[in-house]
Amino acid sequence: MKIVCKQKDLAGATNIVQKAVSSRTTLPILEGILLEASNGTLKLTGNDLSIGIEKKIDIEVIEPGSVVISSRLFGEIIRKLPSSTVEISYEGNKVKINCEHSKFVLTGQDPLEFPELPDVSNDNTFDIDRELFKTMIKQTIFATSQDENRPILTGSLIELADKTLSIVSIDGYRLALRSAAVESENNVKVVVPSKALSEVNKIISSSDSDDNKLVISLTDKHILFEIDDVKVVSRLLEGEFIKYSQMFPKEFKTKVEIDTNEFLNGVERASLLAKEGRNNSIKFIVGSDTLEITSNAEIGSVNESIDIDMDGNELEIGFNPRYIFEALKVIDSEKVTLEFLSSVSPCIIRPADNDNYTYLTVPVRMAN
Amino acid sequence: MKIVCKQKDLAGATNIVQKAVSSRTTLPILEGILLEASNGTLKLTGNDLSIGIEKKIDIEVIEPGSVVISSRLFGEIIRKLPSSTVEISYEGNKVKINCEHSKFVLTGQDPLEFPELPDVSNDNTFDIDRELFKTMIKQTIFATSQDENRPILTGSLIELADKTLSIVSIDGYRLALRSAAVESENNVKVVVPSKALSEVNKIISSSDSDDNKLVISLTDKHILFEIDDVKVVSRLLEGEFIKYSQMFPKEFKTKVEIDTNEFLNGVERASLLAKEGRNNSIKFIVGSDTLEITSNAEIGSVNESIDIDMDGNELEIGFNPRYIFEALKVIDSEKVTLEFLSSVSPCIIRPADNDNYTYLTVPVRMAN
Repeated sequence: MKIVCKQKDLAGATNIVQKAVSSRTTLPILEGILLEASNGTLKLTGNDLSIGIEKKIDIEVIEPGSVVISSRLFGEIIRKLPSSTVEISYEGNKVKINCEHSKFVLTGQDPLEFPELPDVSNDNTFDIDRELFKTMIKQTIFATSQDENRPILTGSLIELADKTLSIVSIDGYRLALRSAAVESENNVKVVVPSKALSEVNKIISSSDSDDNKLVISLTDKHILFEIDDVKVVSRLLEGEFIKYSQMFPKEFKTKVEIDTNEFLNGVERASLLAKEGRNNSIKFIVGSDTLEITSNAEIGSVNESIDIDMDGNELEIGFNPRYIFEALKVIDSEKVTLEFLSSVSPCIIRPADNDNYTYLTVPVRMAN
Repeated sequence: MKIVCKQKDLAGATNIVQKAVSSRTTLPILEGILLEASNGTLKLTGNDLSIGIEKKIDIEVIEPGSVVISSRLFGEIIRKLPSSTVEISYEGNKVKINCEHSKFVLTGQDPLEFPELPDVSNDNTFDIDRELFKTMIKQTIFATSQDENRPILTGSLIELADKTLSIVSIDGYRLALRSAAVESENNVKVVVPSKALSEVNKIISSSDSDDNKLVISLTDKHILFEIDDVKVVSRLLEGEFIKYSQMFPKEFKTKVEIDTNEFLNGVERASLLAKEGRNNSIKFIVGSDTLEITSNAEIGSVNESIDIDMDGNELEIGFNPRYIFEALKVIDSEKVTLEFLSSVSPCIIRPADNDNYTYLTVPVRMAN
């Protein structure tokens, strides 16, 4: 293998595929990046067997070939090289990297040992606007579980039916659901690890192309995201997702409309006292015109008072403040509505101006 | 005590004095900030007994008084309050903080228990341009020792004699010396903890005043830095500083002039391989026209080649790369000179265009 390419292109591509390289692996070959050069293209691949990322860049191929090289060291070297032309060759298990007055020689590994990315054929494929998908992920991913004891909840349910795409995350204490209309007639119901969704979002954010389409393809076991010349393949999580539609209360007895920012700031300030206390909780006192947020700890107390529009019964209810402000942070609408049934039933938060987002969180028991 | 002030002023002042508040202290009162209100001024003080920082802001005093309040919690609250007017009162051991619709109540502590800052009278005082002092600190502070077993080396020597101010740091492996002409006739020779110098530099960087004077005052035990309305008082380190002038080799046999940036980048790239190896070392091969930088590890090797002007003998010598690039990073000159006596003698690095900065570092023994 012998190639010539631009340092900038190589550094950018390495940054992307490195996200799929595990630093804690029992298979040393997985600590490497696979470089494959042919037909004017270099394909870089990282693969930790759970997620794989592949990116192609245009280069000059003097001699086609492939090699696996230490991801960490290769990335560090490429980033530190001058913004110039880089020549890479592989011969007799040595990878030579030359750029201006710098010459590196690194040990390469056999490309045949590198596990191929799963082939996700394009039978079940649909596409969606990138920015919309990014927003949908942002509004739901924070509610995935970190608890590896219930692996299915560490991912998000992606459901496509009746031309509506829904993404749902549940961590046992809260649920975030975002829906959007799409053009596809497909039917999809899969659970995707949050790591893959997070990487897809980062790649969308860093893309500077004019194309605004994200192509998603599925098999029984895998999902493929295509963004420009980047492919992200992830294993799907196996198992039954929670039947979430049963979780929503059938009715409510208190409905509040409140300014999103005032509410967010009040909850964040009250959380400063909450984390000093034993329960890390804040209390909402819902009155006819104001919502008061209070929290007490040995060192002091806080009272935030916010004007609201309220229908229904007055109510006192306690929450973990993080479960409230994380939702408010991803809602762009100026106002949100809160729905309560009782002080021991979940609270529903929605943007006041549309119904594409629903967030549910359970209250905490309050000390008397 | 009862005062009214602007959130922005209060947050800015709290950020500054908090730097002198220790979070690991056996004296709980030292986890607090002292607030003292009188004559239209609020004075905030943090003090961990080693360093003390005081800052004054203009406020409206309704009732003079003082209180000590938890530094961490007070800081968090003030930063999160809206950019508006804040009212603070202290009565019956409760501190009330009100701002728009937010009301906090915190436990205050007795201001009489708070240790006063040492009085540094203005007998031995000189001043210096702030930006110059900042550069002098930046060029020397990284060479202070982190080893608490030789406390004197955890600070920098500040020496004023014959209208020349010198700052010197030594950590046992290297020495950084920066000098500058000043107008003062004073004689000074003190060792200042690097923590104090680092905080002074941050305060200079964040100051937006037109005044460019830094006033420095000294007693036997303490040093006082005055920047606008901020005072930083630090204990001096006790003991004898190393007689550093004896450390410089009397002669050299190899003198190199080299482009600072090319040299810095080459050393940084070579360090990527050095840290994979057993000794974390790089080798300089000084020839008549080029300096080669090499490093070897099991995983690979590097060779950087840089054009130089050289006088004297060719030479091979090894270094810890960090001890080279940290110095190059603080030299603004386009070119530096390197002076060598032998492969087991220290190397001297200086800017090529002036003699106000001298850096010395010892070589490492090379494997054959």
